[in-house]
Amino acid sequence: MKTNEVTQILHFDEAILGALREDIPWEDVSANAVVPEGVKGTAELIAKADGVLAGLNVFERTFAFLDSASEVVFYKKEGEEVKKGELIATVTGDMRAILSGERTALNFLQRMSGIATYTRRAVKLLEGSKTKLVDTRKTTPLLRAFEKYAVKVGGAGNHRFNLSDGVLLKDNHIGAAGGVKQAIAAAKAYAPFVRKIEIEVETLEELKDALDAGADIVMLDNMPPETLKKALALAKGRAETEISGNVTEENIKVYASLGADYISSGALTHSAPILDVSLKHLKPLD
Amino acid sequence: MKTNEVTQILHFDEAILGALREDIPWEDVSANAVVPEGVKGTAELIAKADGVLAGLNVFERTFAFLDSASEVVFYKKEGEEVKKGELIATVTGDMRAILSGERTALNFLQRMSGIATYTRRAVKLLEGSKTKLVDTRKTTPLLRAFEKYAVKVGGAGNHRFNLSDGVLLKDNHIGAAGGVKQAIAAAKAYAPFVRKIEIEVETLEELKDALDAGADIVMLDNMPPETLKKALALAKGRAETEISGNVTEENIKVYASLGADYISSGALTHSAPILDVSLKHLKPLD
Amino acid sequence: MKTNEVTQILHFDEAILGALREDIPWEDVSANAVVPEGVKGTAELIAKADGVLAGLNVFERTFAFLDSASEVVFYKKEGEEVKKGELIATVTGDMRAILSGERTALNFLQRMSGIATYTRRAVKLLEGSKTKLVDTRKTTPLLRAFEKYAVKVGGAGNHRFNLSDGVLLKDNHIGAAGGVKQAIAAAKAYAPFVRKIEIEVETLEELKDALDAGADIVMLDNMPPETLKKALALAKGRAETEISGNVTEENIKVYASLGADYISSGALTHSAPILDVSLKHLKPLD
Amino acid sequence: MKTNEVTQILHFDEAILGALREDIPWEDVSANAVVPEGVKGTAELIAKADGVLAGLNVFERTFAFLDSASEVVFYKKEGEEVKKGELIATVTGDMRAILSGERTALNFLQRMSGIATYTRRAVKLLEGSKTKLVDTRKTTPLLRAFEKYAVKVGGAGNHRFNLSDGVLLKDNHIGAAGGVKQAIAAAKAYAPFVRKIEIEVETLEELKDALDAGADIVMLDNMPPETLKKALALAKGRAETEISGNVTEENIKVYASLGADYISSGALTHSAPILDVSLKHLKPLD
Amino acid sequence: MKTNEVTQILHFDEAILGALREDIPWEDVSANAVVPEGVKGTAELIAKADGVLAGLNVFERTFAFLDSASEVVFYKKEGEEVKKGELIATVTGDMRAILSGERTALNFLQRMSGIATYTRRAVKLLEGSKTKLVDTRKTTPLLRAFEKYAVKVGGAGNHRFNLSDGVLLKDNHIGAAGGVKQAIAAAKAYAPFVRKIEIEVETLEELKDALDAGADIVMLDNMPPETLKKALALAKGRAETEISGNVTEENIKVYASLGADYISSGALTHSAPILDVSLKHLKPLD
Amino acid sequence: MKTNEVTQILHFDEAILGALREDIPWEDVSANAVVPEGVKGTAELIAKADGVLAGLNVFERTFAFLDSASEVVFYKKEGEEVKKGELIATVTGDMRAILSGERTALNFLQRMSGIATYTRRAVKLLEGSKTKLVDTRKTTPLLRAFEKYAVKVGGAGNHRFNLSDGVLLKDNHIGAAGGVKQAIAAAKAYAPFVRKIEIEVETLEELKDALDAGADIVMLDNMPPETLKKALALAKGRAETEISGNVTEENIKVYASLGADYISSGALTHSAPILDVSLKHLKPLD
Repeated sequence: MKTNEVTQILHFDEAILGALREDIPWEDVSANAVVPEGVKGTAELIAKADGVLAGLNVFERTFAFLDSASEVVFYKKEGEEVKKGELIATVTGDMRAILSGERTALNFLQRMSGIATYTRRAVKLLEGSKTKLVDTRKTTPLLRAFEKYAVKVGGAGNHRFNLSDGVLLKDNHIGAAGGVKQAIAAAKAYAPFVRKIEIEVETLEELKDALDAGADIVMLDNMPPETLKKALALAKGRAETEISGNVTEENIKVYASLGADYISSGALTHSAPILDVSLKHLKPLD
Repeated sequence: MKTNEVTQILHFDEAILGALREDIPWEDVSANAVVPEGVKGTAELIAKADGVLAGLNVFERTFAFLDSASEVVFYKKEGEEVKKGELIATVTGDMRAILSGERTALNFLQRMSGIATYTRRAVKLLEGSKTKLVDTRKTTPLLRAFEKYAVKVGGAGNHRFNLSDGVLLKDNHIGAAGGVKQAIAAAKAYAPFVRKIEIEVETLEELKDALDAGADIVMLDNMPPETLKKALALAKGRAETEISGNVTEENIKVYASLGADYISSGALTHSAPILDVSLKHLKPLD
Repeated sequence: MKTNEVTQILHFDEAILGALREDIPWEDVSANAVVPEGVKGTAELIAKADGVLAGLNVFERTFAFLDSASEVVFYKKEGEEVKKGELIATVTGDMRAILSGERTALNFLQRMSGIATYTRRAVKLLEGSKTKLVDTRKTTPLLRAFEKYAVKVGGAGNHRFNLSDGVLLKDNHIGAAGGVKQAIAAAKAYAPFVRKIEIEVETLEELKDALDAGADIVMLDNMPPETLKKALALAKGRAETEISGNVTEENIKVYASLGADYISSGALTHSAPILDVSLKHLKPLD
Repeated sequence: MKTNEVTQILHFDEAILGALREDIPWEDVSANAVVPEGVKGTAELIAKADGVLAGLNVFERTFAFLDSASEVVFYKKEGEEVKKGELIATVTGDMRAILSGERTALNFLQRMSGIATYTRRAVKLLEGSKTKLVDTRKTTPLLRAFEKYAVKVGGAGNHRFNLSDGVLLKDNHIGAAGGVKQAIAAAKAYAPFVRKIEIEVETLEELKDALDAGADIVMLDNMPPETLKKALALAKGRAETEISGNVTEENIKVYASLGADYISSGALTHSAPILDVSLKHLKPLD
Repeated sequence: MKTNEVTQILHFDEAILGALREDIPWEDVSANAVVPEGVKGTAELIAKADGVLAGLNVFERTFAFLDSASEVVFYKKEGEEVKKGELIATVTGDMRAILSGERTALNFLQRMSGIATYTRRAVKLLEGSKTKLVDTRKTTPLLRAFEKYAVKVGGAGNHRFNLSDGVLLKDNHIGAAGGVKQAIAAAKAYAPFVRKIEIEVETLEELKDALDAGADIVMLDNMPPETLKKALALAKGRAETEISGNVTEENIKVYASLGADYISSGALTHSAPILDVSLKHLKPLD
Repeated sequence: MKTNEVTQILHFDEAILGALREDIPWEDVSANAVVPEGVKGTAELIAKADGVLAGLNVFERTFAFLDSASEVVFYKKEGEEVKKGELIATVTGDMRAILSGERTALNFLQRMSGIATYTRRAVKLLEGSKTKLVDTRKTTPLLRAFEKYAVKVGGAGNHRFNLSDGVLLKDNHIGAAGGVKQAIAAAKAYAPFVRKIEIEVETLEELKDALDAGADIVMLDNMPPETLKKALALAKGRAETEISGNVTEENIKVYASLGADYISSGALTHSAPILDVSLKHLKPLD
């Protein structure tokens, strides 16, 4: 899987340019001091830990902004696993541009790869079950597109992208509407008909109301396994089911064994540690 | 410590608005479906884990953008420790605005507080030593100002903000310049004279060259404790010293005991897990 | 119904400001020449034709940008019908601001009201049937949020907002996928699970495939009434149904009588003539 | 006539990019689901009604943004008449880019061509007279440059572009200034001397004052033919003349026969129905 | 004369905010280090040379951006002459905001006042003649609106604002068109009819052609006084006249004595030295 | 020295595009009227006065924006001296693009070259001394990067770029802190440790305090030569020294003879007259 081109052009590019301006509000004083103008060089992108790569296109585009003639040759593919010490890519181009873009390119790559790595590990725990892992909206502000993309590279799926493109009624919505049935009725009346209606329920009573009211998806929030079992039996054939709430490496296998359609986890985007990668061995080309 | 007002106005506000537009490219379909217009409500911001708060102003501004009449009453202060279950604040305002701003406000707050929490713990390990902990440029793209601010709330200091406002010569710069002395000479000739010149050294020979060439700060990178001891003795009185490279909870106390001026750690901003916080109990006001 | 506040703040305001800059790249030479500074005045907004009002908030905000102390008193409500010659509102504020904002405010209001008026007339033709009228993506570039909002004021519903928040597979997608079933399978595998899958079919065979493959919504495109009847019978209870293609005032009643769930019409946004409104009787306040 | 290159670069491009982002805030879920990456294809742009083409460059640029290697071959020229069913162009490029750009490209083209078509018809009614048809500022917010360009493609001329580049004193300005003569004097004193002074008059008395005060252009607003005849005789040789107010297909020939220099019509931009065009027959290239 | 409000809101504000971000890409380290948060203070704006004030509103708005509660009390008015040492205004507000905004506010004020001062002196040389002084497009990039406004405060008039709102045919245009008459004919055919046609002529022959072709304004470029005299006689009653080219304090009186309508001078905006102003005596309020 | 590529890409380009939009909010009516589409031409850039060139890249980029195929051949290099009448470059490209870009390209070039010319003359006065000339923050709003770059082309150095990247404590800061020592202590505690601390002193007592408190740089403000001599003796070996305040061509040699490290001058950027350059002899290519 490659970064989607249209998303790259319409959304990623602007963020990359913004990040470069954040890091270089004026000029890269260190690079410009020691590197003469117009010297072409090459450097190596090396993994410093094991993990799954995501964001290779973003890495490449960062240098392309600073030197349109720069070239990145990849030895690994998007979504591929990499071992500590392996060569991921070589970057060739203006040496000043390589130095000036290095940190920004790595800051994107290490975060996106961190999410893909963490996600891949969680996805593996679900192997053999029919349950699919999905993300949440607990993403880093301004970087949601990057992070949800990395989740897909890691092998999980995306939940809704934002508040406009999905309906998810939580306790606060239910309270405001006066109950589960009223909330669903209000959503059906208000939302564009192409939206599925999802509702979060905390008890079996709420669940029954949700099913009766025609919810398309029911989110079973923070229920103990026993309750979950009953809930899933009730919902079977009537609505899609999603388990959420404090999903951990320990309990994810238990949840999966229950046969829900989806498990959602905020940790994929808010708690994945970075994958350590480094740009080394910059040297001038003859 | 409060968010700096001028930074808030010139930089934070724009990012908050961008984050709101990211989450609400059109409208909040769920909130608008179930909450009538113009209903005032109130909700509680509650800690779901122990930690240090950072970003309270950002939290407040997020709601202010959506409802200029909204009010946030804080029961905790910026930089204060909070315990799981404690009430941090109450938000009062238009119920649609509260629902629509909730996730964005929390996404900022939980990340900033996560960094402050992680930083505070590291800073405590240095108590009693003269060594100060500082951050790096390994920050989340587009959010550096937020993250470096959170580091300060946590009690550590900031290294340079970006590539324009500090000179830091690394192995690649040294190679390009033809040696430590040449790199420092080039930087002194090129950079505005108000910049200190910092250089990364990996051996005692490099360190001697750096000191002879008049470096203001020497970064001792990935040196074992024995070498560090010698290096610090050499540099004493001649340059400020900074230890960097894979700083962990285990080795940080050892480093501190050696008496360096600074220890820098990328983990403060790239590996701090979030602090879990939640907005609960939304209800209409009578 | 009022313009949604959050959409107003996050999206409409920026467009209004852009429109003002388009009309006043420098200054309003005529107004500034003849009106002294700081003179307060008042003017009347009058309907010059019968219709349905949409965009009153946008009208008000336009003047608020140029004079934050300006006031608009409305005698009609959003979505209300107005007769030729009736007073809709009075605008009070700095006379220069009123003159400078007049054309931009009217350009928004007359287009939005035009769409609401046209939509209301179409909706009335469907009275008594269960079929709902919805819009399309054939909107004016950069103004979709304004136009889809006006459609709702007119009494119809919205189809998907954009290419990201709904799946609609058309002939070109079906061709690319290798058939109806393959297209639906691909969409189910790729799209976030919260999306309904809609597919456009032109024959009963395609329809059967779509239903068998589990389409959530089937769009019956350009089918003659006889075929439509059969198609609706086939789809009954298996998928939601939408009729599209050259919907006119003549055939809309026939379509509605067939019992489809939805009829979609691009004309609501691309062919609605403006509602003529005018700002008259500007005079200084004593 | 082709789209002016500099206007295209400095102004149109930004709007096209904005429109693409409006339609694709994230990604085109449908296209990306069914079309594999990197498949080249071709599609046909076909007229579904008779009309005059305007905006071919804009159509082409839309696809170029999403796929810089895309190519559009045109079989018709800007401003040329097209018949229902005729092939206008073929688009070749990445199939995802073609699908993702289709609606935005068509939304521009059908509106611009609609204005050109409507304008061409009105211009033909003036054939044989010396009177020229011009547009107004009653354009769609944010799209004035596109619409006034389309008016020129249709064969009419442009009135002022905005409030800064032309002086037009209307009843409200005259009232504020204390009379026709005072308004003209104020404008001559205030406006840059390179501006012509135009004034709207409703009676012959006002017209005489305007001529005496040295107006460069007099706009004869909503006058009946008999009054217009007298007014034109009075103004002859002293000022340019413009007829405005409810110009229709019926009365435009009468107005033209009176010999005014210009007739202005807001309907060119606010009431032109779209020209129906369609992108069909997308298929992969071998 | 005050800064026009609408221009301030639509154009000046954005530039002021941009200038503040240019000077404070992060935070004002010096101010924030020494001034505690929330301390109110006051400072004095003092003239350090004689001159004419322009940009007082811009000065005030700069502080308002950083502290919306700040207040500026002016002792001098826009366009008023000030003597070295005089108090122009006092600024009261948050002390950090005053320190952070100081340089930006002064950078605007000293440049705008410099232009007004220089212009006023030139305008005085024309006293008693009918000739009016006007500016050119030789302005500082991105600051034209500020500078042309300052020219008006100084007492001169504005020539066209930009390439879109005035027609001025120079030697290169004439060459491209094939001669003076052809250039004027082309302009009349192409430009909106509300534009005056101005042409630059260098000889009496060109002038005659221009007058015959119906030029509205003739620019007499770099002609010696004797030629100018003949040219002005020829143009009398047929076109407005403008003298341009190396206008200096020495020759401006000679030019004025010849009776041209306008003299244009690029030096007003490209060679006016700043007016020295200073913000002094910042002190905390009790 | 060439314009730094990264600064050009990340910062200059945006300003150039903004300046083009400022001058061409719609289209270049004059050029488009007389020049047919698609005609290639060439023009000469000629010096109309002696000076030092700065901004050749900016000049070239301006035309590249309007015609990506345009070519500029330079006969002079950045920083080179040019004599009145000499040919600097030829521009070849679309004739409309050349005409439309001319004024913007020249407005940048003449200002930047003016600063380089003025700076070079001042730098020559310092020849033979060890004192270096540096600029200040008294730059034109929004154009600081251009102007500080031109100062370097002229041969002087840059002081801090902005309020975030250097600490300079002035009288107001000292007052707020309660004294020189307190101000320096506060700055050391607050500012990132990579910042040097500079303080402005007006008396020898203040100087002694500053040195004792460990200031890195002392700015000796408006001191008479006798005091300066004593001050420089005191500071010798303890801090870098900078002389500021009303530096003129007359006193600069005196200051230099005293042996300070730096002299700063605001006049370099706020009082340099433009270097007159002109684009002539536009003609079509065969």
